[in-house]
Amino acid sequence: MPGALNITPRILMGPGPSNVDPRVLQAMALPTIGHLDPDFIRIMEEIKTMLREVMQTTNELTIPVSGPGSAGMEAAICNMVEPGDRCIVCVNGVFGGRMADVCGRYGGEVVTVTAPWGQPIDPQDVRKAIGSKGAKIVGIIHAETSTGVLQPLEEISRIAHDAGALLIMDCVTSLGGHPVMTDEWQVDVAYSGTQKCLSIPPGLAPISFSPAAMSALESRKSKVANWFLDMTFVKAYWGQERTYHHTAPINALYGFHEGLRLILEEGLHNRWARHKANHEMLVAGLKCMGLSILPKPEYRLWSLNAVSILDGADDMTVRKRLLSDYNIEVGGGLGDLKGKIWRVGLMGCSSTPTNVRFFLEALRTILG
Amino acid sequence: MPGALNITPRILMGPGPSNVDPRVLQAMALPTIGHLDPDFIRIMEEIKTMLREVMQTTNELTIPVSGPGSAGMEAAICNMVEPGDRCIVCVNGVFGGRMADVCGRYGGEVVTVTAPWGQPIDPQDVRKAIGSKGAKIVGIIHAETSTGVLQPLEEISRIAHDAGALLIMDCVTSLGGHPVMTDEWQVDVAYSGTQKCLSIPPGLAPISFSPAAMSALESRKSKVANWFLDMTFVKAYWGQERTYHHTAPINALYGFHEGLRLILEEGLHNRWARHKANHEMLVAGLKCMGLSILPKPEYRLWSLNAVSILDGADDMTVRKRLLSDYNIEVGGGLGDLKGKIWRVGLMGCSSTPTNVRFFLEALRTILG
Repeated sequence: MPGALNITPRILMGPGPSNVDPRVLQAMALPTIGHLDPDFIRIMEEIKTMLREVMQTTNELTIPVSGPGSAGMEAAICNMVEPGDRCIVCVNGVFGGRMADVCGRYGGEVVTVTAPWGQPIDPQDVRKAIGSKGAKIVGIIHAETSTGVLQPLEEISRIAHDAGALLIMDCVTSLGGHPVMTDEWQVDVAYSGTQKCLSIPPGLAPISFSPAAMSALESRKSKVANWFLDMTFVKAYWGQERTYHHTAPINALYGFHEGLRLILEEGLHNRWARHKANHEMLVAGLKCMGLSILPKPEYRLWSLNAVSILDGADDMTVRKRLLSDYNIEVGGGLGDLKGKIWRVGLMGCSSTPTNVRFFLEALRTILG
Repeated sequence: MPGALNITPRILMGPGPSNVDPRVLQAMALPTIGHLDPDFIRIMEEIKTMLREVMQTTNELTIPVSGPGSAGMEAAICNMVEPGDRCIVCVNGVFGGRMADVCGRYGGEVVTVTAPWGQPIDPQDVRKAIGSKGAKIVGIIHAETSTGVLQPLEEISRIAHDAGALLIMDCVTSLGGHPVMTDEWQVDVAYSGTQKCLSIPPGLAPISFSPAAMSALESRKSKVANWFLDMTFVKAYWGQERTYHHTAPINALYGFHEGLRLILEEGLHNRWARHKANHEMLVAGLKCMGLSILPKPEYRLWSLNAVSILDGADDMTVRKRLLSDYNIEVGGGLGDLKGKIWRVGLMGCSSTPTNVRFFLEALRTILG
């Protein structure tokens, strides 16, 4: 039989998970209670209230789905897309591509709007794709984890709504690190993950549905193909009815509760400013070493920095030395960017001046 | 902002979750590391090895799905059922009914085989339902949590395989408490949950696919509609390829690792014997109070006891007093059995002689 776990703590500066505050870890170790216990029902209510604040929304159905971020994407799409629905999906990296795949699996007629990896989507391309045929949904990634691109959303939201489409936003890598203004931007479905700027262990997917999205759900012609993520049931489980659907991941939700408390203690604006400042410090330090960031300055994520690898440096060797000699985890590139970028995350608890300085020093030493 | 969590520990004797050993809770509080960290990859390997032992199988693809037990059911069905496939689903309680619903959502042509709630399925009824048309799958609940019925499986397995069908078994409430012989019974897909007899917090779904099930997956005509649970990807994530799919719930898997170690330390046979002995002690005590168990003795679960409520006793009043005066959680009946039974769980860490004695004493006092 394997021995007990013996975990080497790391400095988590990859694309997620980020480091987790000990208060969150300790909350997860509280005694498990029943999911219909009056105490747990109070915890669910508190979670919904705090999550609305973090997602900047008054949407009633604002809850953590009982699965990781990719279950959040699946939940958004399986509830909104019916067979034959025209779906405009913006693809400028891995996660836009995944969204297109998922829409197709639920029977959507997918039209992709593309931009080169490292660049944002042009709103006029979205307008053209909608064209005269219209669309049921427009899907877009706010923070493309594979390229470090921050996508401006307000114009695309106007274009989508002018055409009567619902806007689905992936904010997995922005929520808690960048402003994510769900209501102000008129987003209809916003989903995220916990293990990025929220600094909560992976396993839950915050999600929020606007009244228009709820109407679309209620007026579906067909059952949601995905039983586990059917929001008709999930809504009744998290709502006043408390109708049994599945068993919520009790201890993960303890950690989620404490993680949200930490975010509100810091204050959202302070937290965004911290992410911005540490990102700028990193970029300045990299510049001194002759290293650059893939996206243009105005489209850069603060939370995920796509650092172009200089000719002559070996991607894997550098990452392995960062891990073995400094306990620092950073990510490699995905798809076409494999071997061409490092993905350096400064998310949640991992976004500190100390981490930036230590990483720059380590990288300088390794690159010689 | 809500205050920090302050959890009242309970004696969990409902249909799940069951009580969790402090070693499992402490493992969940270990520092989060990356899901591609070499240390985490070793943990994944150890989990697969231990889980095969617990599920009594040599199936290569034996892993915890990153969602609760209901995601396990969804994973089993969405991968095995294609539109138009004939599905024989055995329904003698809530969870069989759910399985039929899920099969239909993925396009299966569902034929149900029923038995009254509280009774097992008759193998000859399965044979008749398969009939001359055959079937792609036969789905059955080994331990029906809504009625406390243990379903004998060997004859039904023979009937299913003689007809060339795959056998899908729900062992959510039996795994770790009753013998679950995945290979010996020739089960093709077995899935469970963690929060019952494994005594690990809810949020993961152990699942195992036989070589025949893997062949069926590989020879599908259509993509799996559910991207998140598509085993083509999940297999590559948990396999030697380590192809990125989603981010595994790191800390939940720490707890899972420790929970499996506890089970193997105790020994499966010892654990089964403990569940049987405590069940028998409970039944004897209830008998002295004039209370009986819904299923016949030969079909009774050791892990979940469906106790018939005597005329004159009020279901909710009794359960509320058990919780408020004794910190004991038991479950109520579902569907047609609402108000007619209590569901008294003796699962994993909750299955102890002390709990049985304390519960009997509490119930005796409340019933007067």
